[in-house]
Amino acid sequence: MFNDIKLNRKTPVYIQIKDYIKSMILKGMIRKDEKLPSTRELSSLLSVSRNTIVCAYETLRDEGFIYMKIGKGAFVSDVQIKHQSMWKVDWTKMINSYAKNAEKFDTVKHEAKWKKGMISFKSIAPDENLFEVGEFKKAFLNRMSIEGEKILNYGYAKGYSPLIKYLLKYMENKGVNIKNKDILITNGFTEGFDIILSSILNDGDNIICENPTHDTAIKIMKLHNLNIHGVKLDNDGVNLDELKNTLSQNKFKIAYLIPSYHNPTGIVMSADKRIKVYNLLKEYNVPIIEDGFNEELRYMGSHIAPIMALSDNGNSVLYVGSLSKILFPGIRIGWIMADQEFIGYLESVKRSRNIHTSFLDQAVLYEYLESGNFEKYIRKARKVYKEKYEFVLKCADKYIPDAKVYGEGGLHIFIKLEGVNARNVLKICCERGVIFTPGDIFYTDHSRNDTFRLGFSRVSINEIERGFKIIGDVVKELKV
Amino acid sequence: MFNDIKLNRKTPVYIQIKDYIKSMILKGMIRKDEKLPSTRELSSLLSVSRNTIVCAYETLRDEGFIYMKIGKGAFVSDVQIKHQSMWKVDWTKMINSYAKNAEKFDTVKHEAKWKKGMISFKSIAPDENLFEVGEFKKAFLNRMSIEGEKILNYGYAKGYSPLIKYLLKYMENKGVNIKNKDILITNGFTEGFDIILSSILNDGDNIICENPTHDTAIKIMKLHNLNIHGVKLDNDGVNLDELKNTLSQNKFKIAYLIPSYHNPTGIVMSADKRIKVYNLLKEYNVPIIEDGFNEELRYMGSHIAPIMALSDNGNSVLYVGSLSKILFPGIRIGWIMADQEFIGYLESVKRSRNIHTSFLDQAVLYEYLESGNFEKYIRKARKVYKEKYEFVLKCADKYIPDAKVYGEGGLHIFIKLEGVNARNVLKICCERGVIFTPGDIFYTDHSRNDTFRLGFSRVSINEIERGFKIIGDVVKELKV
Repeated sequence: MFNDIKLNRKTPVYIQIKDYIKSMILKGMIRKDEKLPSTRELSSLLSVSRNTIVCAYETLRDEGFIYMKIGKGAFVSDVQIKHQSMWKVDWTKMINSYAKNAEKFDTVKHEAKWKKGMISFKSIAPDENLFEVGEFKKAFLNRMSIEGEKILNYGYAKGYSPLIKYLLKYMENKGVNIKNKDILITNGFTEGFDIILSSILNDGDNIICENPTHDTAIKIMKLHNLNIHGVKLDNDGVNLDELKNTLSQNKFKIAYLIPSYHNPTGIVMSADKRIKVYNLLKEYNVPIIEDGFNEELRYMGSHIAPIMALSDNGNSVLYVGSLSKILFPGIRIGWIMADQEFIGYLESVKRSRNIHTSFLDQAVLYEYLESGNFEKYIRKARKVYKEKYEFVLKCADKYIPDAKVYGEGGLHIFIKLEGVNARNVLKICCERGVIFTPGDIFYTDHSRNDTFRLGFSRVSINEIERGFKIIGDVVKELKV
Repeated sequence: MFNDIKLNRKTPVYIQIKDYIKSMILKGMIRKDEKLPSTRELSSLLSVSRNTIVCAYETLRDEGFIYMKIGKGAFVSDVQIKHQSMWKVDWTKMINSYAKNAEKFDTVKHEAKWKKGMISFKSIAPDENLFEVGEFKKAFLNRMSIEGEKILNYGYAKGYSPLIKYLLKYMENKGVNIKNKDILITNGFTEGFDIILSSILNDGDNIICENPTHDTAIKIMKLHNLNIHGVKLDNDGVNLDELKNTLSQNKFKIAYLIPSYHNPTGIVMSADKRIKVYNLLKEYNVPIIEDGFNEELRYMGSHIAPIMALSDNGNSVLYVGSLSKILFPGIRIGWIMADQEFIGYLESVKRSRNIHTSFLDQAVLYEYLESGNFEKYIRKARKVYKEKYEFVLKCADKYIPDAKVYGEGGLHIFIKLEGVNARNVLKICCERGVIFTPGDIFYTDHSRNDTFRLGFSRVSINEIERGFKIIGDVVKELKV
């Protein structure tokens, strides 16, 4: 019985022996008050040192699985589990509509999945090969040596204060007036957006946004049972006539906009249009959630300040930022910048959700940023992605010449192909080893089925060309 | 103008110069199409290398703040922000009842705060001085060298799969049958509990729990607008008569229990009572959320298996676990173990909330655990905390002899002092430099005002004695 144990190399041997004996006790293979082999016997049986067995037994005692009798040895405690008769719950009946919808709208679960060997244009995550892991390690070790114990213990709901200060400065550098504003650190954009909607909206409220727009935002708006009013896009951002028209027909609590490198279209709202949109929303007193998506991945043209900068010392814009779209998405750090008093409420909501975002991650990211690594990284990343972006435009032109192509930067382009059903293109492409994101999931009203988003950040130049050729072939075949 | 810049030592100089020029441009101090000093001029003006200035200018160009004319130099782009007239939103009117309640029930904000020099029995966080930061660093470096890039990029909503496997094994070692069960990694207990309530309950539903119970759980139940039915506690856990009575009078969707080292009382529900409670809830078909709070901090007696273990291959128990109550709370890692199919739904809810928990933290924690560090740590921590626990009991007996003291382990004790208002005790103690948590916040019905919780994990032996003496004096004074 005792010599059936198989030892691995990773875990300390005493723990493996302890866990093995524990499982024998729990399964009732050794019973209450039964004597365990002496440490001497077991050490020779297993060919490990006697100290190892002593340590295993002590730990078993500390965990309450055995007791010791002086001079007599180790005995099993009264811990055997008395299994009760079967009780099955039908959880699918317990699930409420919120969880049902979360599952239903979960595109990760229901869209075409990548299989080995496929070329995938689905991802708009950054290419992890560009990450400077060495610098990140350095930042970790620096921060740990300064305050390792502290950042591993509880922190504050609002966030790690040096990071908040850094981000306030970062926003100021975009032209934002930071007076009377504050920042809440969140687990990425997703949590920031969810917390805002949770805090100001109720079931059935109207929200106005671009159409198409970020699919995760659509999902969250739907999960909050909002009435989503999408406004179509021109080449320089949301169509003003339709915006005005929609605003005049309904009472809106809030607007959601992605002015830069709009997801999925890649459109950048012009500086002029930002002013017009801002003033139109002001006229109807509809405050703005501004999604700062990928603002850093500008490849050409002048800097365009976020809408929040226009509001100067006003407080009508809530900015949701996230570096994690381009840098270290795995650590899930984003932020909400907003009116100071409002942030106070959001802080309490954040605390009620998950106490706070990982203080370790926040502290290490702060150290990484403060040392100038982000600027260095972004220069490198911009160069690599720009090259890919330009190649992607060329390939689109060459292989899908009838397509209307959108996208002025970032990590993806958006394609419109009138008369072609993107789902049909995807189906055949998938058989030929290429996948992408069909555009319909980005429409608030499922009004179009002829668009798709192509993310290129994690696809090699070689794969880009092969992928576009396959997509182009399929499009041609379907057009015939 | 340019020589007003003040340089710090931490951030690379070119970034500081770039940010300074940026802010001058944004503020309109240098205008559109104005020429910047030549790199040679500026380098001599600031006494930095010319390369530094070249680098600053290139970055400004990349970010779209300046443009270069060959042979002529660097000029300011059209980026000045056109501030719009004032738009003030009254966010306190925008806030919905959920966010208002989150703020109202936020005890961190509204309870007595620690000030320098005070002895605080408020915290039940672990003592960070016991953390083995060296081992944590090692785990980080190991994991980073194996898959640094990967864990810094997007992961999966369900969690980091080696950690999930480790925790399944960990639960099996507590006697849980893991067949047809699965694990979702969450940002600590708080998120796990919130996600479960969000997924199965609706406004006005009834929930049954212990009274008193975990204050964060009460807050979350209230934020979900549940009708909370608290059942009083005996010395070995929930009172069975009252439990039966309550179950028979209302229709409950779910029960919430803390069987081990109950927060705030520290009571451990006996093995026998676990069986009785389980079968009573089964009779009324009310599934159980089991809070695995501090199960590891047992100082005496036999191991008692979690309620989930009793259910064997049934699926009626949802277990919410968290090592982060005793180890590295700052990284916020917990888990829900439940029926496999149910976890599938919760996974989608988690994805809609914040995509996933930090993959870096999960991977490093996995490496730390797998190498046997947790067992080593817990042995040390148990020894230190046990000593403090025993000393605390002695002090309670010595200085507050009339008190009824609860608590069989963990990091806190609970005190009942009939005829004494704990808020009054706290008020005077606070003036004399001692704070603790008044017990009323743990009661579902505010039925008692004569209890308080004393956390001792982060208080030194010397402070414990001084603190108890002060509390004892105040109690005596108030009793007169």
